[in-house]
Amino acid sequence: MRTYKLTVAYDGTRYRGWQRQATTDRTIQGLLETAISDAAGYPVEVNGSGRTDAGVHALGQTASVVLSGAVKEEFFTDNVNQGLPEDIRICEAHLVKNGFHARKSASGKVYEYRIDTGDKPDVFRRRYCCHFPQRLDLEAMRRTAEYLKGTHDFAGFTDKKDETSTKRKIYDIMVSRRGSSVTIRYEGTGFLYHMVRILTGTLLEAGTHARTADSVQEILRTKDRGQAGFLAPARGLFLREVHYDQRGR
Amino acid sequence: MRTYKLTVAYDGTRYRGWQRQATTDRTIQGLLETAISDAAGYPVEVNGSGRTDAGVHALGQTASVVLSGAVKEEFFTDNVNQGLPEDIRICEAHLVKNGFHARKSASGKVYEYRIDTGDKPDVFRRRYCCHFPQRLDLEAMRRTAEYLKGTHDFAGFTDKKDETSTKRKIYDIMVSRRGSSVTIRYEGTGFLYHMVRILTGTLLEAGTHARTADSVQEILRTKDRGQAGFLAPARGLFLREVHYDQRGR
Repeated sequence: MRTYKLTVAYDGTRYRGWQRQATTDRTIQGLLETAISDAAGYPVEVNGSGRTDAGVHALGQTASVVLSGAVKEEFFTDNVNQGLPEDIRICEAHLVKNGFHARKSASGKVYEYRIDTGDKPDVFRRRYCCHFPQRLDLEAMRRTAEYLKGTHDFAGFTDKKDETSTKRKIYDIMVSRRGSSVTIRYEGTGFLYHMVRILTGTLLEAGTHARTADSVQEILRTKDRGQAGFLAPARGLFLREVHYDQRGR
Repeated sequence: MRTYKLTVAYDGTRYRGWQRQATTDRTIQGLLETAISDAAGYPVEVNGSGRTDAGVHALGQTASVVLSGAVKEEFFTDNVNQGLPEDIRICEAHLVKNGFHARKSASGKVYEYRIDTGDKPDVFRRRYCCHFPQRLDLEAMRRTAEYLKGTHDFAGFTDKKDETSTKRKIYDIMVSRRGSSVTIRYEGTGFLYHMVRILTGTLLEAGTHARTADSVQEILRTKDRGQAGFLAPARGLFLREVHYDQRGR
């Protein structure tokens, strides 16, 4: 029995999200399980570092899979990739200690949200960013982000309340501009359902002065989703990388 | 009667090329003519700077259109754009002198060809580049390009022989690398059918040492398409901009 850690990139446009579903075969997990099972000759289960929503992209999602015996990295990057559609790719595969689990072993995640502030939606970036044709005050967004960094109960920034704990730690939020593109990068221990997209909607409202920077303190205090910002669309969101302590490389 | 010069961007992936066809409505020219005619209330004809092939993209294709009266730029960038699919956009529109014709008035063109040399095709760039997972010797490509610059009869670098003249002038060919991306930029008076894609296939062969730099002199001399390189796929090609002398702004 051997455990492998996979790094996977996908263009989420055509898919109903990461998680396998009985009613559709258009999920990333489902397609990976089928492709690896076909190549291995027996059924396998693939565990992701977390679920990405329908339409969300990944540059470096991670997943773990247990095989009955040892294989070379090329088993994944050549054989399995050939059984995957061209918008899903296993970029790397590494043998890890048995017991490694892509979700349970993860220590942190980096997400990136891309915004196109140009007048007209760019025809090439339209699948990979949110079109938001407004002047954004980046300093106001950064001041707002300061209040969100650190350990907080983010219950006001999720659309699902049944988590065991809604406490999370955000290490950093970086807002940068390049031409008409604005990117927000989030680093933290983990993120709740819809959390990065609600944080983004909130920062965009701060960037247009529709809300003040310190308004987010009130959301953290009241845990009231209704006071937080709009849910930014899935197409702008990328899971960039998942961090592990030494144990999970 | 007023003449307008339009700058148009499109993602060519879904289309059968620029030129209107009786048998399909999936052409850029056809969709622009329909959208402008609908907005104007009478039928118009749109003339492009040239035809782009099926699957080829444009960052700055130009086109001219004659309307019965004056309109503001917003007529094109707002009203007409709303009638276009999201992968075709009029970026700019300017009133020009009557008599201006996007093709006949053009003095030069800039094309860009993008190559992904990474091991695995990048899931986000796959629609917008040619996947060519080989080490490219950029210096060999540049030496080869030197022989192609200037005024030559490019009959060996086209797939259509019935042009009045196959003589063209290439001002410059620039080869650059950024990470695993290699870009070739072509500037010239104009390009024959398939010419940029055949030049690219030829330069890629030079980049892998499948041919010598001076082999292209022989193609220019013999005008033998069979000696030139392979036809690089459409998805990597972008029409970047079209130049005009003062007259056409």
